[in-house]
Amino acid sequence: MNLSALLTSAGINIGLCTLYLSLYSILRKQPSFLYVYFGRQLTQRNNNFLDAFNLERFVPSPSWIVKAWGLTEEEILSVGGLDAVVFLRIFVFSLRIFSIAAFVCVFGVLPINYFGQEMQHTRISAESLEVFTIANVKEGSRWLWVHCAALYVITCSACSLLYFEYKSISKMKLDYIIGSPPKPSHFTVLVRGIPKSIGEPLGDTIRNFFLHYHGSSYLGHQIICRRGKLQNFFSNAKMVYKKIFCFEVTALDNTCRSGLCRCGLCGGVSNSFRFYPDNFYERRTDLHCIDLSSHQKECSSAFVFFKTRYAAIVASKVLQTSNPMLWVTDLAPEPNDVYWRNLWIPYRQLWVRRIATLLASIVFMFLFLIPVTFVQGLTQLEQMRHMLSFLKGIPNKAFVIQFVSGYLPSVILQLFLYTVPPTMMLFSTLEGPVSRSVRKKSALCKVLYFTIWNIFFVNVLSGSLITQLSLITRPKDIPAHLAKDVPRQATFFMTYVLALGWTSLSSEVLQSYSVLYHLTRKYIFRCKDDPSLVPSFPYHTEVPKVLLFGLLGFTCSILAPLILPFLLVYFFLGYLVYRNQILNVYSTSYDSGGRMWPIVHNTTVFSLVLTQIIALGVFGIKASQMASAFTIPLLIITLLFSEYCKKHFYPIFRDLSAQDFIDMDRDDEQCGRMPKIHEQLFTAYAWLAPPPPPPITGALELCYVDGEPDSPVQVTI
Amino acid sequence: MNLSALLTSAGINIGLCTLYLSLYSILRKQPSFLYVYFGRQLTQRNNNFLDAFNLERFVPSPSWIVKAWGLTEEEILSVGGLDAVVFLRIFVFSLRIFSIAAFVCVFGVLPINYFGQEMQHTRISAESLEVFTIANVKEGSRWLWVHCAALYVITCSACSLLYFEYKSISKMKLDYIIGSPPKPSHFTVLVRGIPKSIGEPLGDTIRNFFLHYHGSSYLGHQIICRRGKLQNFFSNAKMVYKKIFCFEVTALDNTCRSGLCRCGLCGGVSNSFRFYPDNFYERRTDLHCIDLSSHQKECSSAFVFFKTRYAAIVASKVLQTSNPMLWVTDLAPEPNDVYWRNLWIPYRQLWVRRIATLLASIVFMFLFLIPVTFVQGLTQLEQMRHMLSFLKGIPNKAFVIQFVSGYLPSVILQLFLYTVPPTMMLFSTLEGPVSRSVRKKSALCKVLYFTIWNIFFVNVLSGSLITQLSLITRPKDIPAHLAKDVPRQATFFMTYVLALGWTSLSSEVLQSYSVLYHLTRKYIFRCKDDPSLVPSFPYHTEVPKVLLFGLLGFTCSILAPLILPFLLVYFFLGYLVYRNQILNVYSTSYDSGGRMWPIVHNTTVFSLVLTQIIALGVFGIKASQMASAFTIPLLIITLLFSEYCKKHFYPIFRDLSAQDFIDMDRDDEQCGRMPKIHEQLFTAYAWLAPPPPPPITGALELCYVDGEPDSPVQVTI
Repeated sequence: MNLSALLTSAGINIGLCTLYLSLYSILRKQPSFLYVYFGRQLTQRNNNFLDAFNLERFVPSPSWIVKAWGLTEEEILSVGGLDAVVFLRIFVFSLRIFSIAAFVCVFGVLPINYFGQEMQHTRISAESLEVFTIANVKEGSRWLWVHCAALYVITCSACSLLYFEYKSISKMKLDYIIGSPPKPSHFTVLVRGIPKSIGEPLGDTIRNFFLHYHGSSYLGHQIICRRGKLQNFFSNAKMVYKKIFCFEVTALDNTCRSGLCRCGLCGGVSNSFRFYPDNFYERRTDLHCIDLSSHQKECSSAFVFFKTRYAAIVASKVLQTSNPMLWVTDLAPEPNDVYWRNLWIPYRQLWVRRIATLLASIVFMFLFLIPVTFVQGLTQLEQMRHMLSFLKGIPNKAFVIQFVSGYLPSVILQLFLYTVPPTMMLFSTLEGPVSRSVRKKSALCKVLYFTIWNIFFVNVLSGSLITQLSLITRPKDIPAHLAKDVPRQATFFMTYVLALGWTSLSSEVLQSYSVLYHLTRKYIFRCKDDPSLVPSFPYHTEVPKVLLFGLLGFTCSILAPLILPFLLVYFFLGYLVYRNQILNVYSTSYDSGGRMWPIVHNTTVFSLVLTQIIALGVFGIKASQMASAFTIPLLIITLLFSEYCKKHFYPIFRDLSAQDFIDMDRDDEQCGRMPKIHEQLFTAYAWLAPPPPPPITGALELCYVDGEPDSPVQVTI
Repeated sequence: MNLSALLTSAGINIGLCTLYLSLYSILRKQPSFLYVYFGRQLTQRNNNFLDAFNLERFVPSPSWIVKAWGLTEEEILSVGGLDAVVFLRIFVFSLRIFSIAAFVCVFGVLPINYFGQEMQHTRISAESLEVFTIANVKEGSRWLWVHCAALYVITCSACSLLYFEYKSISKMKLDYIIGSPPKPSHFTVLVRGIPKSIGEPLGDTIRNFFLHYHGSSYLGHQIICRRGKLQNFFSNAKMVYKKIFCFEVTALDNTCRSGLCRCGLCGGVSNSFRFYPDNFYERRTDLHCIDLSSHQKECSSAFVFFKTRYAAIVASKVLQTSNPMLWVTDLAPEPNDVYWRNLWIPYRQLWVRRIATLLASIVFMFLFLIPVTFVQGLTQLEQMRHMLSFLKGIPNKAFVIQFVSGYLPSVILQLFLYTVPPTMMLFSTLEGPVSRSVRKKSALCKVLYFTIWNIFFVNVLSGSLITQLSLITRPKDIPAHLAKDVPRQATFFMTYVLALGWTSLSSEVLQSYSVLYHLTRKYIFRCKDDPSLVPSFPYHTEVPKVLLFGLLGFTCSILAPLILPFLLVYFFLGYLVYRNQILNVYSTSYDSGGRMWPIVHNTTVFSLVLTQIIALGVFGIKASQMASAFTIPLLIITLLFSEYCKKHFYPIFRDLSAQDFIDMDRDDEQCGRMPKIHEQLFTAYAWLAPPPPPPITGALELCYVDGEPDSPVQVTI
């Protein structure tokens, strides 16, 4: 591939992006797609947008870019929570570090690569891209110290930027905790592994235990119940009824009709789905005689409420009894964040589940090499035909061959890649986390490892299953392999950034799947817009993507600096696009409190270390003793820096500090807010419904202990 | 080596052991060696043993064995603490598991090994030892399932025995904590990283912080100070004076004269070291005008006392402030256990120290290969002469060659091995632990890794530096290598158990170094017996030794079962010897509360897994698909078992439970013991002197807070 081909490819992609973004700027102004492009705003404000027809709606405009650019960090914090801010900080950090890297590498390293060998340079646009990589520098060159110096500049800037980011995000997290209104989760502890006493109700066991050992701070508790079969049957029946009812209401509902969309193609008002307008809730008098609550199974878990935040944190930190599998305490997740389906999982199962899903993820990661190998085989169709006889039936026409070898592989690969985030999310669900944010974080890690392994390493180590497996067993050879292969694959990574990076941003902003789904739902199934369908931000797919581009940037920076300008465009565009998406599209029903930053930090440090190891390999191949010798201290400094950050900042993301909580408690007590907070606690977890909403059964018994209400309210999942 | 040679070697070693033990049974009855053989008892009881001459003193007797055998576990607990009990439990466990293994392997595996190939068996005593190992079983043998079954029996028995041991030791630990008299460490928290406020004394900062955030439970605190240079000078002067004074007193002291030992050889009453009998303490009036306390440097650490155990544990568990490097809290070690010299180390240095010592230990472990390679070279003296010209000067006489190649290597290696525990202890000290038990535990781990690597792996992988380093880079080949080499090295390991195992026990009981040191001290330097010189149990050297023999037993069990009877003798003898040593010799000034059991457990699981990996390699070499296939589930089960134990028992060794502490607090409150405990707290850490004792300076200010004494007593180190 030569430079002009790359620039052509870049041009095509710029054109495509412009087209996509223009399309977006038109579609977003159509009232039919309000729920696709303004889902978050609609669920929050219930605004009625003007439905009048005007020409302006069909003219592309950059107004959304201006809006997205103008957002302040405080606005993003209030709109998307701390997670959104942290996510955007990845872009800010990447823009900063890759600006420095681009400056250093384009003006320092690139000329040295280009003039690295005594050769006749042709016209620059016809030059092969190899000429711009370190592969063009001759062995034993005196100029390799420039690469080493560039590596120093990049590493030192990255470390200092990472340090200030970590520091500022830690501060932001603390301010967020201190500044936010009282949260029920701060007063609540999730207790698991409650032992069952014979002849004593579970509620009494819990009350007795906490009154005895935490009497001065115990406020009440709430048992978690699992629905029995009969209950499941009834709730399913209710759900089916509700769906049918919803169809029927939609069929009669004409408010969503717009001037443009009510064309014949989408169907008019349809009466084909008319049902008898009965009311389940009114007719169920005969069901009342069945005592549903007797069919509930009490799980050995409960939410226990404390009078102060400090008491809750103490109860969650201290080992309760000398049997570590009983009375296991943890700070509860926020009510919106609770993943109700996993609350019934017995605590003693968790470690087995964790190991099993870890193994399953690893197996999945390696099994994925099979489609990759198959797809790589398709590109060499002739070879495949020799090997596999059933392929001989494929007609030998030019367009078939082009289709099979040129287009099909990437389609198949992309289809397989689409299965990864849902599979990892499934594994993370089976792992048994009790909160949605932890589930997403766990899926994020899995997808991240998968991406780095299958996109970076598999491509660099050039493909086939056997090559890689044999490499794992010879770790010593890995740096040399990487050093040889990364510059060679740099061209591929550049096109990867252009094609997949830029395009993924355009399709993210266009939300093509969401548009299709929305259209199908609205005009074929004739459902009303449902605010509960507004998605939450898919951090588990987006963060790994962004971090992968960071990894590509670091590893290619001194080897093939041409990638850096394209990356800068990606990060800048991404910064705008995701600000827009956070503001308009995704709902923020739960927040992990920026807990993804340590992952981002560690991945970036990993990228730096990998870059240094590859550089070490390259300097070794190029026989530059001095550069190799200078890289080793850099490696050690980077690892020490990582350890320093782990000691200084990580505990803030793991634990909450006594000082802050005590201060907050005292504030609330002095202002007299405490009684109201306590009152709200009992309803915070009790009346919250998991999607689909659970029927709340069981009588609301209230008894008083020390003048405080102690409510054994039961929540059913 | 053939069987008769092995039995001869065993016979010689049995003879040597009997000789040593008889010698011990005589020496122990000599009053001169009372402090060597009954150090612990003397420091505790101050008994005056009868000094009369009688013939019985010179007749060997097995009475000590009877006494050691008759000890109950309760007696050991009261004498040697929980650590001693846990240490002896290693022997009990080893005896049990290796009895089972010996039964299964000697009657099941050994015949199959012996008749594994169709060959003419000679007289059994002249048979090579190779015939008894798995190397003799022919490839593809149908009988390898016996080995696999034996592996199953051994693994399952080991796991169940480990489970019950872990369970019973956990229970014992809990009973020990609950049953023991109130300990100051349970009420005390060591606070490090206290921020210095300008214009405010450190004591006020601490008091203000804890009164503000833990006001209801804070009792008082005690600042730790480091001595200034002037103070160091004075205390050194005092020490020198004390030593001289001690010499003089000893020279005048005739009480230690015994009828036998006052011979001409040891010297009579010597007046050659007479000094002017002045008293430092009376003459130092002129020093009083110097205010020593002004030269102390306040460390940013303090002991903080709480009113209840529960409050202390809460304060130690919860992150105090949002800066994780400030106000770092940990439960304090017992007063006797505090390692005073490390208390001054700033908390922010610790992580660097930990990484540095880890690296230093690894480097040391690998550097040790150099003397090993050198020593292995000495055994091939002729080759060495060709390579190194300076060796040509060695005369070519037979006895010189025999000496250099036969005797010198083991002496050099042994000398190098003696440097390992002190070096590792030095590394552990530099790491910065604040308690002596943690320091010893850390040294134990380091020596353990060192021993397993340098004795097991280096010997198995047959020596030279390069072979091993290249193996590390090819982890896939390790099982096959081990499978080939372990049976080959089984003979060496058998002689190792005979020579080093049995002999080490004899020399342990005889305490030859201690005897020599004692004699030198007493009769040449004429010092009095000093109770502070009674050593504490060297767990860091003994535990790795015992665990290494366990590892040898497991790995050789199905490969070369002949080792098992010798190991059983070792463990039985060790059981007796160490019971005797714990009862009589070693002092118990501090106790880690059985915290070494998790290490023992993990090492045993590691040994099991290693055995299975080696078996997998062997079955692979012997081309037994079935046996290989059946070993893999065993491996998985063992790892799951390890994880199970980690979840169910390990937290008990790491944390103390709220339930137990609250119950203990209530008991003490109801019995009215609390005020007395609080009173004792203030002196527990204040007046305790590190060896050598520090001068306690600084006025004893007492102020009262909420009716409770709050003493900013300063302790100087």
